[in-house]
Amino acid sequence: MPKTTAKIEPRTLKGFSDYPPEQQAARQAMFAKIQNVFERFGFSPLSTPALEYRDVLMGKYGDEEKLIYSFKDNGGRDVAMRYDLTVPLARFVAQNQGKLVFPFKRYQIAPVWRAENTQKGRMREFYQCDVDIVGIVSPVADAEVMVCIYTAFKELGLNNVQVRFNNRMLYYRLFTVPDQEIAIILRTADKVKKIGAEAVMEQLRQQKISAEGLEQAEKLLALGEGEQALENIARLFPAAATVAEAVKGVIWDANKLGIPESALVFDPLTVRGLDYYTNMVFEMVLPDKPEFGSIAGGGRYDGLVDQFSEKSLPAVGGSIGIDRLLEAMQEMGLAKSNGLIKVLVVNQDSALRKEYLEMATQLREAGINTELYYEPGKLDKQFKYAESRGIEYAVIMGAAERERGTVQLKNLGTREQREIPRSDIVSELGSAKNKLLWATLIN
Amino acid sequence: MPKTTAKIEPRTLKGFSDYPPEQQAARQAMFAKIQNVFERFGFSPLSTPALEYRDVLMGKYGDEEKLIYSFKDNGGRDVAMRYDLTVPLARFVAQNQGKLVFPFKRYQIAPVWRAENTQKGRMREFYQCDVDIVGIVSPVADAEVMVCIYTAFKELGLNNVQVRFNNRMLYYRLFTVPDQEIAIILRTADKVKKIGAEAVMEQLRQQKISAEGLEQAEKLLALGEGEQALENIARLFPAAATVAEAVKGVIWDANKLGIPESALVFDPLTVRGLDYYTNMVFEMVLPDKPEFGSIAGGGRYDGLVDQFSEKSLPAVGGSIGIDRLLEAMQEMGLAKSNGLIKVLVVNQDSALRKEYLEMATQLREAGINTELYYEPGKLDKQFKYAESRGIEYAVIMGAAERERGTVQLKNLGTREQREIPRSDIVSELGSAKNKLLWATLIN
Repeated sequence: MPKTTAKIEPRTLKGFSDYPPEQQAARQAMFAKIQNVFERFGFSPLSTPALEYRDVLMGKYGDEEKLIYSFKDNGGRDVAMRYDLTVPLARFVAQNQGKLVFPFKRYQIAPVWRAENTQKGRMREFYQCDVDIVGIVSPVADAEVMVCIYTAFKELGLNNVQVRFNNRMLYYRLFTVPDQEIAIILRTADKVKKIGAEAVMEQLRQQKISAEGLEQAEKLLALGEGEQALENIARLFPAAATVAEAVKGVIWDANKLGIPESALVFDPLTVRGLDYYTNMVFEMVLPDKPEFGSIAGGGRYDGLVDQFSEKSLPAVGGSIGIDRLLEAMQEMGLAKSNGLIKVLVVNQDSALRKEYLEMATQLREAGINTELYYEPGKLDKQFKYAESRGIEYAVIMGAAERERGTVQLKNLGTREQREIPRSDIVSELGSAKNKLLWATLIN
Repeated sequence: MPKTTAKIEPRTLKGFSDYPPEQQAARQAMFAKIQNVFERFGFSPLSTPALEYRDVLMGKYGDEEKLIYSFKDNGGRDVAMRYDLTVPLARFVAQNQGKLVFPFKRYQIAPVWRAENTQKGRMREFYQCDVDIVGIVSPVADAEVMVCIYTAFKELGLNNVQVRFNNRMLYYRLFTVPDQEIAIILRTADKVKKIGAEAVMEQLRQQKISAEGLEQAEKLLALGEGEQALENIARLFPAAATVAEAVKGVIWDANKLGIPESALVFDPLTVRGLDYYTNMVFEMVLPDKPEFGSIAGGGRYDGLVDQFSEKSLPAVGGSIGIDRLLEAMQEMGLAKSNGLIKVLVVNQDSALRKEYLEMATQLREAGINTELYYEPGKLDKQFKYAESRGIEYAVIMGAAERERGTVQLKNLGTREQREIPRSDIVSELGSAKNKLLWATLIN
C-alpha cells in the first residue's frame, strides 16, 4: 500500500551508470568469455565483500588513497568500499593462510568504486576482471598471468594486442639517487608518450632533481624498447644484466605459453602507478586504438600480503578494465549484439489463451528463449514490439490455424511466413540454438 | 615499492562474507542456471549502480528503511547503497520511460546491502536474483513471474517447491476498519505459522485493535488455505468474490505455463513485508525444509514507479534469495561441486620446461581447464596439490617418456596410469568436456 509522496526525480549519481539490456547482455557475454579463459588457465573464482574495514584498504594505494569511498556504518565502524580486487585478495590470503594450498590461483570479476574526477571520462563504479597467483616466485607464473589475459583478448576477437612489460628491479640498477628522487623521475617519465622526452626532462629540472638524477633519467629515456633496449642495457649498464636476463626469460616463457614474440615488447618506461608492484609490471594496449590507453595491466607485488601477515607471500596478477575495453570493441565493431529472445508467441484471440500459454511453455521447455504477448492485440503492434526487442521469429495462431492444427511461422527479419504443423514448432525453432545465453554475443 | 607499515589484522566485517573457490564456483553455477531460465522466459539483463541518491531509496521500504546503508560522499551528496533491485528498477524505468518499449521485462542478479541484525543469521551483503515485468496489468504476467522462478528451482534440482500466493485486494474486501488497523492486523497475522492463531489474537488484543477489527481478524485466520479458503470466501464474504475469481485465474494461467496445480496454494495469510506490494503477492517454500522459510517471493506493485513519475506504470516481479537457497540445497545434498580444473601438467625436470609449457598451451587451446606446475618438484607433492584442488588427471613426462614420444596419463581418482602417445593428450583428455565452466555444478 504505497504512500502518496512528493515525486522524487529519477536520476543516477555522476560516474555511476545503468546498463540497459542490450549493453548489459554484451557485457555479460564478455564476462563469460573471459571467465571461461581464466578457468582454462587453472584459476578458480573467489568472491570478497563490497565493504571492508577501512584500515584494510588504507596505506596500499599511495596518493590514490584519497579516492576511496569510506564512511562510518550504523555500528560506528570505519568501513570502505572495495577499491580494487587485489588488496581484498591479500587480506583473504593472510586471513586463511592455514587453510589454503599454494600457489593459490584465483580470478574475480566484480565492480570496484573510486571517487575519480569524472571529467577524465572515468567512471566511479567500474568492473575489474582479475587473475592472481599467490605464493610462488616462479617467472612462469609471471608469464602465465600475461598469457591468460592476452588469450582472453584473443577470444574476444582482438587480434592485435601488444603486451608492454618491464621489471622495476631495473630502476634499482640504473639509479644511484635516493628512492624519493627515483619516484619523481618515474612518475614524470611515465608521461613520455604523451609529452615527449624533452618535456619530461624540463619537468624534472623544474622539480629540482639532482644533476646525477637528471643524467640517469636521460639515459633511461634513451634506452628505447624491445631488442634495442636489451642491447642498450647490456652495453651501457652491465649492472642491470640480471634484469635483462629475467626479461628474456619472461619473453621465452610467455611465447611458449601462447603469446607471439612480436606482441611482447620490453619497455623500460612502463612504470604503472600502483604503490604495491615490486618486480615485473605489464600493460596491454591496442596498437590500432592507442587513444584507449592500457586495457589491462598488472605485475608482481611480493610485499602486499606481508602487510597483513608475519609470513611473506609473493604474488603476481593482472587486471582487465572491462568498461574501457568494451568501449574500444564497440568502436572497432567487435561488440555486435543479437537479440536475446528468439521467438514471440503472438496473442490475437482471447479464446485461444490456452493454446498460446501451452505453446510458450513447450518452447521454453525445449530451451528456446520465448516471449509471450500477454493480452490479445493488433498484429502490427505485436510485430513492432518483437522488432524493438530484436526477436527473430513470431508464431501466429488464429481460429483458422487452430482448426487446421497449424501455426504461421514468421521470420521477422526476412518477413517470410510459412504455415507449419502445430506439432513442428519446437523442431522448426529449436534447430538453431539460442543465439546468446552466456556466450556468443561477440564474435 | 611497498612501505613498511604496522601489520593490519586481516578480517571481514560482521555480516559480510568471503566465498572461497569451491563455494563461489557453486554459487556461480547457480546464477548461470537461474539466468538461463530467466532468459528462456523472455527476460533481458539490466544493471544498475551499487550507489543511488539517498532520496531515491527513501520512503519505499516502511520500517525497514533504517537498515539502508547511507552516507555522504566526497562531494557532499547523500548517497545510499542498493537495498534491493526493485526500487532501482522503478527509478530506471521512470528515468527512461520515453526510450523503453513496454512491457519491459528485465532480470538482475546482484548483491544488495542491509544493516540487519546478524544474530538472526542474516547476512548484511547478499545476492538477489530478480525478474520484473513493468507496464502491463495482465494477470498472465503475474503468473509468468511465478512460473519463471518455479522453473529455475526445478532446474536446480528442487522437485518439491510450494508456491503460496495471495491477493492483497482481499483485505480491502474483508476489512471495514481503518488502514492503520488493517496494517497492524496483517503484520501480526503474518506470524500465525510460528505462534498459532490463539497467540495472534492475544497480541492483537494487546495492541488495542477495535472489536470490529478483532472479529474480522478472527474470520481471516479461520479462512484456511487452497480450495477450502476459496469456498469459505464464496460462502462467508460474497464481497470478495472478484478476488476469488482473480485467484482462480492465476492458478489457471500458472498451471498452463508449467506449475502443477498441487504446487499452487492460495494462502490468505501470505502478507509479505515490503510496503510497495498492491495486489498479488507470493512466496515459495520448501515443504521438506520449512525451517528455511521463503526462498523466493514477490508480487504486484502498481504504485512504485509512480513515486518517480507522473505516468502510472503497473509492475509485477519476484526475487530469489540465493544465499538461503544455497544453504538449503547444501543440506539437501543438491549442491555438489566437482573440481573446476581438469588436468595438471606435472613438472619434474627443468630440462623439459619447453615441453611442459607447450603441453599446457595445447590443452588450453583445446578448451581443457589446465593447471601447470610452475617449477620442478617431487611427484608426491604435486599429486597432493592436484588432489587439494580437485584436479582429475595428471600428465607426466620424464626424460624416458620424452625419448619415446609419450606421456603418462594418470587418473588421480582411481590412481590408474597409462602411457599414451604424446600426440594423443588432447583426444584422450578432451573427450570428456570440462565438468564445470558455468553450468553443470549442480545436478
